[in-house]
Amino acid sequence: MLKDIEKSKPEDKEQLNLEIREYRSRLFGMLQTMREKKLPVLVLLEGWSAAGKGSLIKELISEIDPRFYNVVSPAVTAENESRYPFLYPYACAIPENGKIMFLDSGWMENLVRKYIRREISEDVYKNRIRSINEFERQLRDGGYIILKLFLHIDREEQLKRLESLYSAPETRWRVSDDDLWQNREYNRFFKIYDEVMEKTDKAVKWHILDARKRKTAIRDALKLMTSRIDSAIRKERFTGDVYDAEFPVIEMPLLRDVDLSPSISEEDYKHELKRYQARLSELHNRIYEKKIPVILCYEGWDAAGKGGNIRRVAYPLDPRGFDVYPIASPLPHELNRHYLWRFWTRLPRSGHICIFDRTWYGRVMVERLEGFCTEKDWQRAYHEINEFERQLTEWGAVVLKFWIHIDQETQLARFTERQNTPEKQWKITEEDWRNREKWPQYETAVNEMLQKTSTQNAPWFIIESNDKKYARIRTLKIITDALEKACQDRFRNMMG
Amino acid sequence: MLKDIEKSKPEDKEQLNLEIREYRSRLFGMLQTMREKKLPVLVLLEGWSAAGKGSLIKELISEIDPRFYNVVSPAVTAENESRYPFLYPYACAIPENGKIMFLDSGWMENLVRKYIRREISEDVYKNRIRSINEFERQLRDGGYIILKLFLHIDREEQLKRLESLYSAPETRWRVSDDDLWQNREYNRFFKIYDEVMEKTDKAVKWHILDARKRKTAIRDALKLMTSRIDSAIRKERFTGDVYDAEFPVIEMPLLRDVDLSPSISEEDYKHELKRYQARLSELHNRIYEKKIPVILCYEGWDAAGKGGNIRRVAYPLDPRGFDVYPIASPLPHELNRHYLWRFWTRLPRSGHICIFDRTWYGRVMVERLEGFCTEKDWQRAYHEINEFERQLTEWGAVVLKFWIHIDQETQLARFTERQNTPEKQWKITEEDWRNREKWPQYETAVNEMLQKTSTQNAPWFIIESNDKKYARIRTLKIITDALEKACQDRFRNMMG
Repeated sequence: MLKDIEKSKPEDKEQLNLEIREYRSRLFGMLQTMREKKLPVLVLLEGWSAAGKGSLIKELISEIDPRFYNVVSPAVTAENESRYPFLYPYACAIPENGKIMFLDSGWMENLVRKYIRREISEDVYKNRIRSINEFERQLRDGGYIILKLFLHIDREEQLKRLESLYSAPETRWRVSDDDLWQNREYNRFFKIYDEVMEKTDKAVKWHILDARKRKTAIRDALKLMTSRIDSAIRKERFTGDVYDAEFPVIEMPLLRDVDLSPSISEEDYKHELKRYQARLSELHNRIYEKKIPVILCYEGWDAAGKGGNIRRVAYPLDPRGFDVYPIASPLPHELNRHYLWRFWTRLPRSGHICIFDRTWYGRVMVERLEGFCTEKDWQRAYHEINEFERQLTEWGAVVLKFWIHIDQETQLARFTERQNTPEKQWKITEEDWRNREKWPQYETAVNEMLQKTSTQNAPWFIIESNDKKYARIRTLKIITDALEKACQDRFRNMMG
Repeated sequence: MLKDIEKSKPEDKEQLNLEIREYRSRLFGMLQTMREKKLPVLVLLEGWSAAGKGSLIKELISEIDPRFYNVVSPAVTAENESRYPFLYPYACAIPENGKIMFLDSGWMENLVRKYIRREISEDVYKNRIRSINEFERQLRDGGYIILKLFLHIDREEQLKRLESLYSAPETRWRVSDDDLWQNREYNRFFKIYDEVMEKTDKAVKWHILDARKRKTAIRDALKLMTSRIDSAIRKERFTGDVYDAEFPVIEMPLLRDVDLSPSISEEDYKHELKRYQARLSELHNRIYEKKIPVILCYEGWDAAGKGGNIRRVAYPLDPRGFDVYPIASPLPHELNRHYLWRFWTRLPRSGHICIFDRTWYGRVMVERLEGFCTEKDWQRAYHEINEFERQLTEWGAVVLKFWIHIDQETQLARFTERQNTPEKQWKITEEDWRNREKWPQYETAVNEMLQKTSTQNAPWFIIESNDKKYARIRTLKIITDALEKACQDRFRNMMG
């Protein structure tokens, strides 16, 4: 995609100034509508060192009210890089509805640098390209307007600019060894930039700007921005198509076919609890040492015993090394972003364990049944979630998902007990009774979820919890087995 | 405060287990009320390496629903340390109402380590002690329940524990060089721990636990926690006293005495704008290089021209190095924390500029006038804000505060123009008209604010903005002068 830039005639500055003013005022006029329609805009600026990303951003924002945009710089994203998944810093930084984010160097520069330095393998490189395409498509399908710009200059121009920066004492510090190295290795970079652009030109297309000519680049960027926002304003909010799940899934039984009779004696329970908790405590040490991230997902019927189950798992863990996130209805600032955002931002750092008490699967359960998203949205979500979880396991995470299962009679008995016990009354609300009436609809949704999202890397386990104690032991066993296996796998890839 | 621990008789484990169970169940019983009363609880655990902070936390949380607490470990707080004020990681981590936060090593350990290694000067050490006292008092006065525990063990016991950790292969990695060093330098640490405890025993008292005896320590910690929470539940929410402003302040004129006639010709404006923006752009480079944080605060009448003024200041800045934060009504998760929290979390990293479009002064203006806080709350706020800003400038920040000033006639003219111009109608709301009716009350509040909070380190500037262009130039001049001065001051203390 990247071509050598040809010599061209000098810029007609007056004409360009005119056009720039024109586009600026058009852009300015659109912003109010963009905000009213709650459209989020992400402008990614990639390109050569010294190509002028910073000063282009400066021009793009000059007429925009600072309340409506923010600029994310590499320093901000770099901070979180090492102990989180590749896309984590970008996923955390996405703009909220009605705002524009300018991302100064993003996933592409990050990938190219690491690849060219051989800090990541060929496989990891390929996985990341795939992840980028997934990420961009998911954002696009979630209604994000994305504009990807590459600022192109040739080798001589780059050298000239670096020399000029270097020669002035007040800008010398801006020229890093990395920049000089890129100039020496211009051709290698060229090849890889080109390849990455070629391969990530799917959900969102690249635009290459001739950045040798400052005014032309400003004009072109403004033109692209206005036309993208304009067309997004004119049409209905884009919601993507539904994809066929291409993921190989583990076959799961239907809920009604699950035998809920398994139980455990009090004596065995005490003994096993002690044993597994001791084992888990020990494994937590090793997990921490080997920097393996662990993500435990709990879903299940109301009163199935999620809380008590989680407490038994958390008890033996070193409190410095885990977090429990109860997931309730999204808060306003969460609702104003992509539905996976509030989970991205809660991912554990490597070596830590994080327990989600309810999860992103709310999309295909409560949000589906209560109409909080469109049918297309939740149908697309199975695939999106599989992609998200694959990215997590490629990063090196152990991802385990538990459906804590009981039957309707058991739920009724527990609800009634809660109602009749003063200290437990806060645990039972009108909503629980209302949800209970929708048991059949939920059962359909849960069955579909289990069928479509139980993958090898992030499997579902249906935990029989009519006997809560049995359920706790079974969960502990699954977790300890999985962690043991992960610790033994010494080639475990932590760079995905 | 710290004493050598005397030899004592062995623990009566059975009796202790009984008491522990008793306190746990009392604590468990209180949690629901704590949540209903929206009480935030902060438990700080400090102490010797290997004193058992982690395992004590584990015991304290074992009966608590994971939804109601979180544990903050040194790894989390360390991440943000180097480029933010000393107390930043802790201020960002404070719990929300109705939740408990356990802080595993906090401001005390941080201070002692840096001081003992001579990474900070005697002066900085003293300032930080003072800041800690201010911080704890502000939280206490804001309704936070704080419990400070120090886990004490003697030198032999520490050595024994470190040896035991070191001898087992699976825990060897837990023993750091720092830990061994602390054991060798036990007496020096003892002296400084003691001194810091002595000096920070003001707003919130320390409790020293004998951590040689595990069960006793658990019992004592549980006892302290239940009794603190219990007494907080029983009484009215604590709101602190009002302090006399001890801060030397710059005398400020009353608003009505400010001459609003200054203006600038179009020609001069263009010329000066260009000149100051060029200077500011250059200074931004030097600020970045010298890692000086800059905090610009805008307050002013509706329609005074804050937005346009901010845009002119932001325009010449490198977009990678600044952020503009528009401050509106707090969101639910912000309302659920100390009122300064949403500003702590938005502080710039060193070398960056951050512009607040409205600020923490909302406490003594809109919150005061609309009754969003008690009278004591806003009266106390002048002093709290002066302390907060002193902490910022001791960190090395340039803090400038602008009151963008117009008279009532000018406001009316601008409101009317907005009303009559379709593209500007969104900028004017019913609320603006309502606020306008309260001009006299606001004027009183603003006058009091300017009198009480214009300090040498964080001064207020009243910017005459009947002529917006004049106002922009004047603001730019103040900013560039201040930054120039900061850049020249090569002994500028960046470690406060």
